[in-house]
Amino acid sequence: MALGSKLYLIILTTFVFGTANAQVNEDSLFIKKISDEILQHGEAYSNLRNLCKSIGQRLSGSAGMYKAEDWGIRTLKNSGAENAYKQECMVPHWVRGKVAYAGFYTKNHDRDPYFAVAALGNSVGTGKNGIKAKIIEIKNFEELNARKNEVKGKIVFYNYPYNKKILGGAYGDAVKYRGGGASAAAKYGAVAVLVRSVTAAHDWNPHTGALRYNDSFPKIPALAISTKHADELNLYLYKQYADADFFIKSNAQMLADTIGHNIIGEIKGSEFPDEIITIGGHLDSWDLGEGAHDDGAGMVQSIEILRVFKALGYKPKRTIRIVLFANEENGLRGGTKYMEEAKAKNEKHIMAMESDGGGETPRGFGCGMTEQQFAKVSQWKSLFTMLDADKFNFSKGGGGGADIGPLQTAFKTAQFGLNTVGNRYFDYHHAATDVFENVHERELHLGAVVMASMVYLVDKYGL
Amino acid sequence: MALGSKLYLIILTTFVFGTANAQVNEDSLFIKKISDEILQHGEAYSNLRNLCKSIGQRLSGSAGMYKAEDWGIRTLKNSGAENAYKQECMVPHWVRGKVAYAGFYTKNHDRDPYFAVAALGNSVGTGKNGIKAKIIEIKNFEELNARKNEVKGKIVFYNYPYNKKILGGAYGDAVKYRGGGASAAAKYGAVAVLVRSVTAAHDWNPHTGALRYNDSFPKIPALAISTKHADELNLYLYKQYADADFFIKSNAQMLADTIGHNIIGEIKGSEFPDEIITIGGHLDSWDLGEGAHDDGAGMVQSIEILRVFKALGYKPKRTIRIVLFANEENGLRGGTKYMEEAKAKNEKHIMAMESDGGGETPRGFGCGMTEQQFAKVSQWKSLFTMLDADKFNFSKGGGGGADIGPLQTAFKTAQFGLNTVGNRYFDYHHAATDVFENVHERELHLGAVVMASMVYLVDKYGL
Repeated sequence: MALGSKLYLIILTTFVFGTANAQVNEDSLFIKKISDEILQHGEAYSNLRNLCKSIGQRLSGSAGMYKAEDWGIRTLKNSGAENAYKQECMVPHWVRGKVAYAGFYTKNHDRDPYFAVAALGNSVGTGKNGIKAKIIEIKNFEELNARKNEVKGKIVFYNYPYNKKILGGAYGDAVKYRGGGASAAAKYGAVAVLVRSVTAAHDWNPHTGALRYNDSFPKIPALAISTKHADELNLYLYKQYADADFFIKSNAQMLADTIGHNIIGEIKGSEFPDEIITIGGHLDSWDLGEGAHDDGAGMVQSIEILRVFKALGYKPKRTIRIVLFANEENGLRGGTKYMEEAKAKNEKHIMAMESDGGGETPRGFGCGMTEQQFAKVSQWKSLFTMLDADKFNFSKGGGGGADIGPLQTAFKTAQFGLNTVGNRYFDYHHAATDVFENVHERELHLGAVVMASMVYLVDKYGL
Repeated sequence: MALGSKLYLIILTTFVFGTANAQVNEDSLFIKKISDEILQHGEAYSNLRNLCKSIGQRLSGSAGMYKAEDWGIRTLKNSGAENAYKQECMVPHWVRGKVAYAGFYTKNHDRDPYFAVAALGNSVGTGKNGIKAKIIEIKNFEELNARKNEVKGKIVFYNYPYNKKILGGAYGDAVKYRGGGASAAAKYGAVAVLVRSVTAAHDWNPHTGALRYNDSFPKIPALAISTKHADELNLYLYKQYADADFFIKSNAQMLADTIGHNIIGEIKGSEFPDEIITIGGHLDSWDLGEGAHDDGAGMVQSIEILRVFKALGYKPKRTIRIVLFANEENGLRGGTKYMEEAKAKNEKHIMAMESDGGGETPRGFGCGMTEQQFAKVSQWKSLFTMLDADKFNFSKGGGGGADIGPLQTAFKTAQFGLNTVGNRYFDYHHAATDVFENVHERELHLGAVVMASMVYLVDKYGL
């Protein structure tokens, strides 16, 4: 492109003047102020750099988690929280260990191909001798059930591909093999599973993530294999290694639960201090990267809302509470604890918002609420058009995110989950590539703009 | 994010069944086929890799341009063009030369700071002795006019920042200093200009691009300075170098016009062969990077339309013509020539589409057409909702792109310009960073899906 497009100017002009009535116009002007402030002076990006580069991974129970908790308190205070505190909750303490190995095992073992793997979160290890067994490739659960008699004593290799055809939901389609594949195979006597990484990327990085054991079956070790190596393994199995033994080793283990914390920062509401608006992301992250998109982005975007309100001199009518939730990835203990405390104190939660889809360009919200509430939110849609974030997806239950789900179950609290264009998030998700460098400053900040704008409207008008 | 969102499944389900009438449903199913085919088997990305890595830059008149012309013929034929040919047109032949230097010049010149710069396209050089003069920093044209008496004999340094506050149009806002700054300064006797790079990035790369001399004033040399160095230069000018001489050198020069070509590939229409649908991107690129986003992306997306139609066995009713336009960047000779030939042959052009905003996630089209035509296009909007590309911006003139603009002027041909989310394009634009690695496969392919879908609808129903 050589010179500028006229269309851009049209967009710009309609931003302020495109809405008819005075109230909407006042809101439009304030949202433009939010946008200007964050896009010019936003600190979410530098806060994220600090988190990723001075702390990095922060899996539940790790030293990183405790450092990140302190970072959270500091950053919340610096950004305008009137008070910031820790809410204790027990969290699982799973450790990956140093060894994760998977390869063929023949007489000439030194020459056998081996593969980039990483233990799945919550997985047991193999013991120090590893596991040597035949390997069987399985495409999906239907095939597993059809071939259940062939599985006993073997390592099951789930090679279910990330479906590129699906517009938006390929992760949800594939993640069931990671979450439930181990127990499904153990039911038929498998001794371990290898799971093709659940990612949009075709790369050499194993992408980890939690599994959930079904207590009815033996707990067997589970490893993620990189997508490129899954393709290679598939080829080997149809060639010279068809009948070879396979060997895996992992010293992952689940230790005893330990103490973790939700990190909370608040501004008390000036008119309705008892009405609480909760906004958050999760503090824990997987241990292979820096948890930049997942979910450093959600934390710093949430915190930015405090900062922009302070910078613009906006005093919320209702209590704004930023929560950096403990243990979203492999237990959801933080979200659950936050709800339990709210219940015990009989708090009134009118809205909850979560950002846990990465720091990409925002497009709108998943809106989990009543039809009446959604009708009200829909009236604000035009205010989000010029942020190109007016895609509001309605659902009666869910729609917000994992950590704020318990609030909805307990109180029917209206949920907003930030949605993004989402073409890159699952490239990096749960892998060594989820690092600060893969987050784009403006995209991250636009997400904060959209979140702050919706919080402003709900704070002002209720829901 | 630990596990999948239910919302994704909702989106997926509504894709096919969300539309009521049968015709729309048939189109919805065909567009899903286009989407499936391109997202799974698309060749746009590999074609782009080939272009960028085997040829790279292809500025008008350069050896790269001729290689890219042959690449275009080959790729069009491989992708299903029934015939592919070159349409000759004269193009400017500007060469950068090897030297581009800008720095202070004092008695201890070896220690003087110097800056990352690149000649602006079409700029004259300084001569072999360079130019030594005082430098004056100017923020904008208003300041230039106010201080016109201070400019004579000096180098004008335009330090107009890329405005982060602007949602979508910051490039259009800033590019006038690159395009017209040299002549505006020459009018008041300046001897050269340095222009802050027009980019969203804060980086060390100069971003080039065309200038246009006003023949009423002397042609003076013009260089782009990187944004980080523009900031540094600003600081130096307020410190120890306030009164120092400045020295620039560039051996850029404009050579005589040379022969170039529009590269054209066609499928004849089965019912209305005389009704022509033109789709294209531009073949030339700036010479600092590989022209990956600008505009390799537009070329390979356009070519992909032929491939997907062939793969799906779709026989267009109307003639589909893919055009790789010569010389968009510094002359627009290709777009002009294409219109002239169309006029000479009395061709009937019913629609033209251009992709020249980079290979980012698509959001819809700029639609330059009559209100009646836009009403028809708007009826198809729901078909683009599930591609998240239903943002149709109407304008009576323009709205499509530079290369197809002449067709509209000549024939009032309806224009479609692919629009994207656009947060990254101007990071790389016209710089050494516009390389293949900065294009994302799925984002590029989604653009091709959206383009092919609109072409299918216009081909089927007319406009």
